[in-house]
Amino acid sequence: MKEKAVILVSGGMDSCVTLAEAIEEGYDPCLLHVNYGQRTEKRELKAFRDIAHHYHIRHTLVTDIHHLVKIGGSSLTDSQIVVSVADLNSRDIPSSYVPFRNANILSIAVSWAEVLGAGAIFIGAVEEDSSGYPDCRKNFFTQFEKMVDLGTKPETRISIKTPIISLKKSEIVKRGLFLNAPLDLTWSCYQSEEEACGICDSCALRLRGFHQAGLEDPIPYIQRPDYED
Amino acid sequence: MKEKAVILVSGGMDSCVTLAEAIEEGYDPCLLHVNYGQRTEKRELKAFRDIAHHYHIRHTLVTDIHHLVKIGGSSLTDSQIVVSVADLNSRDIPSSYVPFRNANILSIAVSWAEVLGAGAIFIGAVEEDSSGYPDCRKNFFTQFEKMVDLGTKPETRISIKTPIISLKKSEIVKRGLFLNAPLDLTWSCYQSEEEACGICDSCALRLRGFHQAGLEDPIPYIQRPDYED
Repeated sequence: MKEKAVILVSGGMDSCVTLAEAIEEGYDPCLLHVNYGQRTEKRELKAFRDIAHHYHIRHTLVTDIHHLVKIGGSSLTDSQIVVSVADLNSRDIPSSYVPFRNANILSIAVSWAEVLGAGAIFIGAVEEDSSGYPDCRKNFFTQFEKMVDLGTKPETRISIKTPIISLKKSEIVKRGLFLNAPLDLTWSCYQSEEEACGICDSCALRLRGFHQAGLEDPIPYIQRPDYED
Repeated sequence: MKEKAVILVSGGMDSCVTLAEAIEEGYDPCLLHVNYGQRTEKRELKAFRDIAHHYHIRHTLVTDIHHLVKIGGSSLTDSQIVVSVADLNSRDIPSSYVPFRNANILSIAVSWAEVLGAGAIFIGAVEEDSSGYPDCRKNFFTQFEKMVDLGTKPETRISIKTPIISLKKSEIVKRGLFLNAPLDLTWSCYQSEEEACGICDSCALRLRGFHQAGLEDPIPYIQRPDYED
């Protein structure tokens, strides 16, 4: 019997490719989706369900942590804060940073993994070519894994796997195509739910990734940037 | 202006004394309560509100993580699993262990603390005289704090404070009385909401604490054990 793994699937491209990697590594994937009151919550949930259906997943869990809206502090969950237009050269932490979101989501994943007896959790975090969120860095996940070891039952062993953390977006696109990941079913935009806006951080990174990979993004956009190269 | 601290207040005796410690240390306390679908959820929430009212707290936040019920694995959240009668000499992890609960709760606290600009989080975990939960040990919290440092903004500094972790229950009772903590408003029973059962792990530990302190617990019990000493 295959070993189970919990895969965090937001519905975006990165988590979809991460799921494809987990399947490639031979795991039985259990898919966790977390609604945290983000603007595009419904569209992301649809993407999650489409991806789960595509791969005929048996175990799925959808959870809500809407207290992140009450807590606020991010343009993703607080409609009073403007979603910033991407500046991919800035080293500042963008307004879309949701305070400590990944630790909240990973903690749910660990609770589920411990009950399922899963040996791994996969998260599609990206460090190299990312928006600069502190909870997307490799050393954060290493530290998180140590904390999990100490905070669970002695017999529980859960590794935190970040298979795409060192990839550039263009490499993620290529890897997704190589693994036949259904990128056309994914949703990455932070702002809109019908057509992607094309200008938020997430759209900008995704579009640049496809551009650099020499490929066309299959999802619809309100506007696409002109690249100068 | 006093520095803010987020205090995890379940409504039990330990968290109430922890809050009293935070006030004693000079913090402006912001009280976080988390419903996680436990059997005695309503009674604990009432205790939380009574304690917040007692101390005239300005900032309170009540959140729900009911996915811990869906995830199951504990007698506290799964009505199919029997709440075990306390065996205070056993070294096994009891059925009431909620997988990775403290990490889930602390992650919410960190999100809130980061937005509030709070410098500390207080949690009333007890290691020495505890039920043996892995996520109640000092080294777990130390590791958690390191993970918080890496997973939050560079300017965020949050210490995880566990002022009663090394105390025995009887010492917690005495400390609570010394600090004038309103122990009569607290609720610790895992099983019932009108009168405490007197036989679950939590009741057994609490009653033994009062007994060893030479004091009478002010809350009502269905039954109280006969101590042989």
